[in-house]
Amino acid sequence: MQHPYLMFLGDVPDQLGAKTAQGIVDWRPEWCLGQMRLPGCQADLGIKDITIKEAAENGTKTMVIGIVNSGGFLPPHWIDSIIEAMEAGMDIASGLHIRLSSIPELKQAADRLSRKLFDVRHPSEDVPTGKGTPRSGKRLLAVGTDCSVGKMYTTLAIEKEMKARDIKCDFRATGQTGIFIAGTGISIDAVVADFISGAVEVLSPENDADHWDIIEGQGSLFHPSFAGVSLGLLHGAQADALVLCHEPTRAHMRGIPHKQLPDLKECMALNLTTARLTNKDAKFVGISINTSGLSVEEGDKLLQDLEKEHGLPCVDAYRTGVASIVDAL
Amino acid sequence: MQHPYLMFLGDVPDQLGAKTAQGIVDWRPEWCLGQMRLPGCQADLGIKDITIKEAAENGTKTMVIGIVNSGGFLPPHWIDSIIEAMEAGMDIASGLHIRLSSIPELKQAADRLSRKLFDVRHPSEDVPTGKGTPRSGKRLLAVGTDCSVGKMYTTLAIEKEMKARDIKCDFRATGQTGIFIAGTGISIDAVVADFISGAVEVLSPENDADHWDIIEGQGSLFHPSFAGVSLGLLHGAQADALVLCHEPTRAHMRGIPHKQLPDLKECMALNLTTARLTNKDAKFVGISINTSGLSVEEGDKLLQDLEKEHGLPCVDAYRTGVASIVDAL
Repeated sequence: MQHPYLMFLGDVPDQLGAKTAQGIVDWRPEWCLGQMRLPGCQADLGIKDITIKEAAENGTKTMVIGIVNSGGFLPPHWIDSIIEAMEAGMDIASGLHIRLSSIPELKQAADRLSRKLFDVRHPSEDVPTGKGTPRSGKRLLAVGTDCSVGKMYTTLAIEKEMKARDIKCDFRATGQTGIFIAGTGISIDAVVADFISGAVEVLSPENDADHWDIIEGQGSLFHPSFAGVSLGLLHGAQADALVLCHEPTRAHMRGIPHKQLPDLKECMALNLTTARLTNKDAKFVGISINTSGLSVEEGDKLLQDLEKEHGLPCVDAYRTGVASIVDAL
Repeated sequence: MQHPYLMFLGDVPDQLGAKTAQGIVDWRPEWCLGQMRLPGCQADLGIKDITIKEAAENGTKTMVIGIVNSGGFLPPHWIDSIIEAMEAGMDIASGLHIRLSSIPELKQAADRLSRKLFDVRHPSEDVPTGKGTPRSGKRLLAVGTDCSVGKMYTTLAIEKEMKARDIKCDFRATGQTGIFIAGTGISIDAVVADFISGAVEVLSPENDADHWDIIEGQGSLFHPSFAGVSLGLLHGAQADALVLCHEPTRAHMRGIPHKQLPDLKECMALNLTTARLTNKDAKFVGISINTSGLSVEEGDKLLQDLEKEHGLPCVDAYRTGVASIVDAL
């Protein structure tokens, strides 16, 4: 996907529907030239409203549909705007479940105008099965006690901190928001099961000995729905460094009311045991806690306690930053 | 898929190409009315050669293309025979990589004649994500130190032994040969990664308290290519009973020359730790060794040694049968 982006919000009924788009604006503000909203839109990314014509004149390369809606479909009254963007010279990238190319009007317009349609939820690359063959370069992977505990945020923060220190590194996206932010990546939970670890090997290929791939994690080895994805990701990543992500106020595993989160020690032990299948030197280098559900005092105390208990840098990637983890590398 | 089957071998160049078909004949001889071979076929299932017309007259419901060829394509000169079978009243089931319905002549004939095309490698059901909610009924799952160490053979033998004892049970197929043998199932390594455990929950739904689902395992938690599949399968199975399968002469993990097989104790420990996420009472009830690469004396000694070491029934499912494992249940 080429940037700059025009952020298309359609007429989503609330801010939550634009969560993906907001993530892109938060992490790549310099790529987001403006937002385009249809009448009735209740989301606002805090960037300027521009028309398709203005966006094209300013060099926009891709219109991004960074929207989550129930059902994942494309509202038919958005189609005209999307075709207009293609006519103005833009490619289209979507995070919806439905494939853009499955909508005849869009497919025809893309063919006619030679524009690209990117469906970030749907892996387009054919990948081989994973092999676990040792490869050069260093890799860091975020793992979690649960889904949605800050793995993307933490890895993006680590990439940013490393780049500020002139350390060679790349964020490697494994989920849709991350893919928009990186401009490339593989939606790892959407690959065919046989190819999970293979897809991660393709995503983070061998590299210079002093280069770090900072790989976005997915799910948790302790999540009854998604642990297979997490294990394949861990094996494919061949991670040298692991960061554990956790949300301390979570009452149960996301979407699974009968299942408690694992203990941090237990979670780290299983991740280490299994990571060592493809990298026997894998180790934890930090813990990243989302303390937003706690008071600042409670959060600080928790980080201090965990640091003492585990002997590792403990951060809140948003509140304290991740410098101490990068120091430890 | 409805039986009886006509086994179509085309003109495969060797016996190995008919391995899937042979497995079906071995386990469901009563379903296989005959084989049909084209000139030049070098495989023989040891059942009688019949024509499509004879098969139809004898009540054949499905023609099975149980063939493995490199590339997974359908040789164009097989198409006439397949259409002839549909015209004679049969559905078609294939284990090839290519989808039958992607071949226009076959799709048109199936539509015209209202015949079904089954592609056992391609899951056709939409499944939800797994939830790990405890469900009634008992389940046994075969796990392995590696791929291709006898998991299907072992579970089929256990089903057969249980049925002979009038224990309520069903073999649940997770791979293509198993699906032909069961007449139903889900090719678990072909589902989208997010749905591995969910597919197994659908495959082995809640049942009578005294009913056993005997679930075919896939891969190994220690295989760098496929461990994600194995973990999702383990979580979805919610297994009460695990049987470890192993091939003692294997020099390295299948397809991975640099990776040794795990120690049996280590393999059982990781399977138990992870199985307990969805069934805290999971335990091993036996070990199944493929001793075909050893002499009978060596094999017997190994089984005795392992039985002493692990305190579990140790069998060669082919040579000694699995009665001692079923006794232990």
